[in-house]
Amino acid sequence: MERRIEIFDSTLRDGAQAEGIHFSVDDKLNIVRKLDKLGIPYIEAGNPGSNPKDFEFFERVRMLELRSAQLVAFGSTRRKDIAVEDDKNCRALIAADTEVIALFGKSWALHVENVLQTTRAENLRMIYDTVDYFVSHGKTVFFDAEHFFDGFRADPGYALETLRAAAQAGAQRLVLCDTNGGSFPADIADGVRAVRRELDVPVAIHCHNDLGCAVANSIEAVRCGAVQVQGTYIGFGERCGNASLSTLIPALQLKMGCRCITDEAMGRVTHTARYIAEVANYILPASTPVVGKSAFAHKAGMHVDAVQKLHASFENFPPERVGNNRSLLISEVAGRTAVANRLAQLDPTVTRDSPVTQEVMDALKELEHRGYQFESAQASLEIFLLKKLGLFQPFFELENFRIIGEQSESHRQISSAMIKVRVGDRSEITAAEGDGPVHALDRALRKALEVFYPALAQTRLIDFKVRVVEQRAATASIVRVLIETTDGASVWTTVGASADIIEASWHALADSVEYKLLCDDRNGVLEVCGGIAAGGAQRQK
Amino acid sequence: MERRIEIFDSTLRDGAQAEGIHFSVDDKLNIVRKLDKLGIPYIEAGNPGSNPKDFEFFERVRMLELRSAQLVAFGSTRRKDIAVEDDKNCRALIAADTEVIALFGKSWALHVENVLQTTRAENLRMIYDTVDYFVSHGKTVFFDAEHFFDGFRADPGYALETLRAAAQAGAQRLVLCDTNGGSFPADIADGVRAVRRELDVPVAIHCHNDLGCAVANSIEAVRCGAVQVQGTYIGFGERCGNASLSTLIPALQLKMGCRCITDEAMGRVTHTARYIAEVANYILPASTPVVGKSAFAHKAGMHVDAVQKLHASFENFPPERVGNNRSLLISEVAGRTAVANRLAQLDPTVTRDSPVTQEVMDALKELEHRGYQFESAQASLEIFLLKKLGLFQPFFELENFRIIGEQSESHRQISSAMIKVRVGDRSEITAAEGDGPVHALDRALRKALEVFYPALAQTRLIDFKVRVVEQRAATASIVRVLIETTDGASVWTTVGASADIIEASWHALADSVEYKLLCDDRNGVLEVCGGIAAGGAQRQK
Repeated sequence: MERRIEIFDSTLRDGAQAEGIHFSVDDKLNIVRKLDKLGIPYIEAGNPGSNPKDFEFFERVRMLELRSAQLVAFGSTRRKDIAVEDDKNCRALIAADTEVIALFGKSWALHVENVLQTTRAENLRMIYDTVDYFVSHGKTVFFDAEHFFDGFRADPGYALETLRAAAQAGAQRLVLCDTNGGSFPADIADGVRAVRRELDVPVAIHCHNDLGCAVANSIEAVRCGAVQVQGTYIGFGERCGNASLSTLIPALQLKMGCRCITDEAMGRVTHTARYIAEVANYILPASTPVVGKSAFAHKAGMHVDAVQKLHASFENFPPERVGNNRSLLISEVAGRTAVANRLAQLDPTVTRDSPVTQEVMDALKELEHRGYQFESAQASLEIFLLKKLGLFQPFFELENFRIIGEQSESHRQISSAMIKVRVGDRSEITAAEGDGPVHALDRALRKALEVFYPALAQTRLIDFKVRVVEQRAATASIVRVLIETTDGASVWTTVGASADIIEASWHALADSVEYKLLCDDRNGVLEVCGGIAAGGAQRQK
Repeated sequence: MERRIEIFDSTLRDGAQAEGIHFSVDDKLNIVRKLDKLGIPYIEAGNPGSNPKDFEFFERVRMLELRSAQLVAFGSTRRKDIAVEDDKNCRALIAADTEVIALFGKSWALHVENVLQTTRAENLRMIYDTVDYFVSHGKTVFFDAEHFFDGFRADPGYALETLRAAAQAGAQRLVLCDTNGGSFPADIADGVRAVRRELDVPVAIHCHNDLGCAVANSIEAVRCGAVQVQGTYIGFGERCGNASLSTLIPALQLKMGCRCITDEAMGRVTHTARYIAEVANYILPASTPVVGKSAFAHKAGMHVDAVQKLHASFENFPPERVGNNRSLLISEVAGRTAVANRLAQLDPTVTRDSPVTQEVMDALKELEHRGYQFESAQASLEIFLLKKLGLFQPFFELENFRIIGEQSESHRQISSAMIKVRVGDRSEITAAEGDGPVHALDRALRKALEVFYPALAQTRLIDFKVRVVEQRAATASIVRVLIETTDGASVWTTVGASADIIEASWHALADSVEYKLLCDDRNGVLEVCGGIAAGGAQRQK
């Protein structure tokens, strides 16, 4: 029988403690909806006692109709030497009105004595009293034993006593926290086993990543009998972050045979990660396990060959199962097979030995040298390859553009762009203002081209990344611009590189527009206006 | 007695297989020097058989005078059904002329049969023959058992036979590879123990991070008796990367009591990580264990309080031991203590209860709302706080600037900037061209100000990052610009945010210049020319 593991997501609480992460109340509501849809049973969403914004959130989240998730409010045991009902943080926890409360207390004597500056006995009373108080108010209490593993190493007897106090007061989960992320798998095994030997309450695990072990430690805890795994969805959290649930859920379910979410939800694990990254304004590293763009990207020539013979040779599970994609990267290291395969997708007559394969390899090397990088800009790559294959007909031509910006002591910067483009035998000149030169140029370009291609009105730029590629002294820096565009239905990325950010942006903008028109044309939905025959004078396919 | 663990760095080989990583020969030589200085004993630097650039590298690396590192060339066992001396990759490995060769062969029957498409017996001969060939040529051979753990799970007998073939032919290390990163700590323990039971050759561990377990798996292998740990220095590598040595070295040495490098070198672990990231043009995530900017950053109010009482409360070791820094973050969550502490560094009379503390907290919240983020821009933060404390006198004032850029079908983009600044009672107007509008503006600003402050001639912009902060429909996007500047001796980061990239850049550029002048002024080395009295008319400290 499948073993069921409870997933507890703290993106909105521990995740919000990460450097650079700031959630609005609306952000939090959107993330709750997304996690609920994935079937996450517990969502820890804030600390109502310490943060007024969290309080507003708990008011508003009650309006959501959640399918399966229970909201969890997080807070600490009462302060020393007062009654629970006199502690305003405890009152705020009640007011948050969640069924479940995650209550943290100290399990490491060092913290009791040096941080709380109280006695070991009073700390045990604080734990007992506070758990008891919430249980008697009808709450389900998960007791977070902060620094449990450090405490257990230093004084196993006392660490276990703190858990016993929580268990006796009615806590329903004993959450063993590796708060500083300093434990290794063998330490986790020792701690989890000791608690299970001594106490009957089910164990949960909460790991931090300070020494890169959060995910492995969580897995080891499950192997030793933990029933619940806590983490943040894409791993961000205080300092080096928490165990990443978007890694753990597939690892537990697809490799260890546990059950966390439905198979259908598993197919949305990647989408959910990217959505949360977007809302949190967090750059998900391409190498992020399972959900990163590179997680199933094969670059070395031998790997590309092998994975095409047999996917399992270099993949733990098919990327589709978690909603990610396989990619065979085109680069110096990738070699001829990958390039030939990509070309054959556009023109089935191309093989490894076609002259165009070598030509493309040389041209890619040259462009990489000039700062281009197509690995993350597949739309630009496709346009480039079509050009090399002689299969690309441009949808417009640039005659010229000009950009002006000014700022004085008393006036803010104003940017404007003038542009003249040609489609077939007709020209269009126009101008636009914008927030910055690239924005002005983007608007002017679309404005000019919408005369001919009304579908461009639906597209918008959703991300704009700039990277200085070469920054060695005495040479001009090369700037690489990546632009992400959407038309509501799909998202594509284009690239430009140049010593000049405006020129680099221009190439990426032009590719972005060309790609949209190319896709619409392929799908037979391209509408052309402005007196130009469909297909355009310059398009002679 | 301290247990010694050998470190084997594959940044230049496995690391180069990461998406987006491209090393020039010079890059590789620079990284070799840096790793040698750190005392890394083995540096795997390329695959001379598969890559002509690697061949040039091995020619040139012989000129370096290394203190302790041995270079390692990487390659595969001979192809099936030929003699070793007829295999051109094997000949290239000899020609690379390194003392040590890392030779990989297949330990997973699935790969033997489906990827190599040969027999199990021929695979064993390929391993034996090739190891034997290099040993008889006087080489030290480390045998990389590719997919060992997958192979061991599928067919433990055959996996061990492949190792036995290598051992019998004289391999000096049996490198157990979790090539697909699909193993968990308990699997690693099983495999390492079985090999140590069966064979006498010392064991090394080589882990990938596809399920986030590379570091923990390596640590578990060491616990079970591995003597050598392989990885890449900051963890990048094929797909989700390799075990990160900048995490593992401190974890093994400072937490597990093993010896990897000297204590003095340990103090350069962070610097080395950032250097390699810079050369590789890789963005080191702030949350990277040990060496990331956030690794010792405390944000939640309670953590900030505790870490000030007792560093060990939330840190596994003091950041100085690995050359990193503690930071107490200023944000909504950080609370009053962190803000008051930071202010007190600039003005010792400020306390938690000073009115300016509240004022600064409110102003920070407002600026964060407008897209500012000071966590990674401490130079701008300092200027902002000095302004709030009434302790900042500007070194110059902007009268105005104007930027013009143009491009036509036949001509590349040209950007130029005109600027007028005032220092004391004197104005300077000038202009400059640049690679892009920000570069032109930067050059014009420095050109105008160098008339008054010659030290600015030594400063240069080394990084320029742009992030779209808000990208919701129907509202203007906010752009945040981070600029990193150096004067050769130190590096500082400044920030600007605006709907307009030029305006945002302007604020970051202006702060960058002000910060340099402020530091020089504090250090008593600020030289002022152009007929302005030292201190300037507008500077009335």
